[in-house]
Amino acid sequence: MADKAADKAAEKAAPDSARRSERARRAILDAALELIGEMGYPRLTIEAIAARAGVGKQTIYRWWPSKAAVLLDAFTAQGETPQGETPQGETPEGGEPALPDTGDLEADLKLVLRGAVDQMNAPAYDLPARALTAEGLVNPELGAHFVARVLEPGLRLLAERLRAAQDAGQIGRDVDPDVVVELVCGPLTHRWLLRTHPLSHDYADAVVDTALRGILKK
Amino acid sequence: MADKAADKAAEKAAPDSARRSERARRAILDAALELIGEMGYPRLTIEAIAARAGVGKQTIYRWWPSKAAVLLDAFTAQGETPQGETPQGETPEGGEPALPDTGDLEADLKLVLRGAVDQMNAPAYDLPARALTAEGLVNPELGAHFVARVLEPGLRLLAERLRAAQDAGQIGRDVDPDVVVELVCGPLTHRWLLRTHPLSHDYADAVVDTALRGILKK
Repeated sequence: MADKAADKAAEKAAPDSARRSERARRAILDAALELIGEMGYPRLTIEAIAARAGVGKQTIYRWWPSKAAVLLDAFTAQGETPQGETPQGETPEGGEPALPDTGDLEADLKLVLRGAVDQMNAPAYDLPARALTAEGLVNPELGAHFVARVLEPGLRLLAERLRAAQDAGQIGRDVDPDVVVELVCGPLTHRWLLRTHPLSHDYADAVVDTALRGILKK
Repeated sequence: MADKAADKAAEKAAPDSARRSERARRAILDAALELIGEMGYPRLTIEAIAARAGVGKQTIYRWWPSKAAVLLDAFTAQGETPQGETPQGETPEGGEPALPDTGDLEADLKLVLRGAVDQMNAPAYDLPARALTAEGLVNPELGAHFVARVLEPGLRLLAERLRAAQDAGQIGRDVDPDVVVELVCGPLTHRWLLRTHPLSHDYADAVVDTALRGILKK
């Protein structure tokens, strides 16, 4: 009988504890995103995140090995779906996400790359994505997670849109869509990360024009 | 007379002290480059650099505000001239450095970008340049120094080579060479930094082919 009562108590405690854990997890993720906006990534600490979230440092270390790992989860949990380097496609009801395909490759690519420029220029994307990129450069394991979870979903959508253009006979058969994806995203990322020049819609258009037609005089 | 003797001693001491300072400075820069190869950037500390260089921590802090600042000076002091993202041009005797100009833009660009690929894949470039890029992403002041001292000299040479091709009537007048520079370097940097796919000569060639002729079916 005593065992049965204990089982019952455990059954009741488990969901409560799961709810408490989930509440703490959300508070930690929210705190990480808030604080990176307030103090910048270099000054962000696990201590500061714990204090803002109202949890002990050990709670954070039980779930994450580093501030970068907390930030990666916080970033990908935003709005439930991971955000890509290129804007996520719209998800038709019950369908897979895809980029716009109006049949006009130039217009579709310019729309997508202008969206990527707007995203890179928005502090809510720029601050955490820039910090995670920086961390990933010198921490290959985190870098691989960041690329797989944050960048690749968008890159894959872009490759699919290019493959559709190839199937429609607009792009040469000798072109590798996976290579072209980085040919168009690379220049945006270069300007975004290195701040060489302003990252603008005009630049996105120039990238698309060059990728489609090249710079050689006809 | 005592004053004169003191002046003489000071005169003699000044060059000795300058020599000692220069020796310490070189030892610090060498230690920074050695240690990043041995322990990686995240674990590199001013303490470790001081110990390896045989100087006190305070000597380093008197000259540099951070480990990133030491590393930037160490990196740019390598071989006396700063190394760019693209290989530095050859310097004809008494002339300005310039990229090869055989009149064949495609061949010249492929040579230059293959050289950039080799450089990015070489640990002596990759380790410090990657660490400095990472630091610069979240430390705008250091980032601006890194871009100005390490990347821009190479980017400028590439822009000049493109301008020569424009003057020779090979590239359309509506093309902005400064934009094209990032269109060809961006994809290499993307793959180098984010390790999305192997950074190879074939990829460098594909970047040049696309930039010159575009991907649209003719």
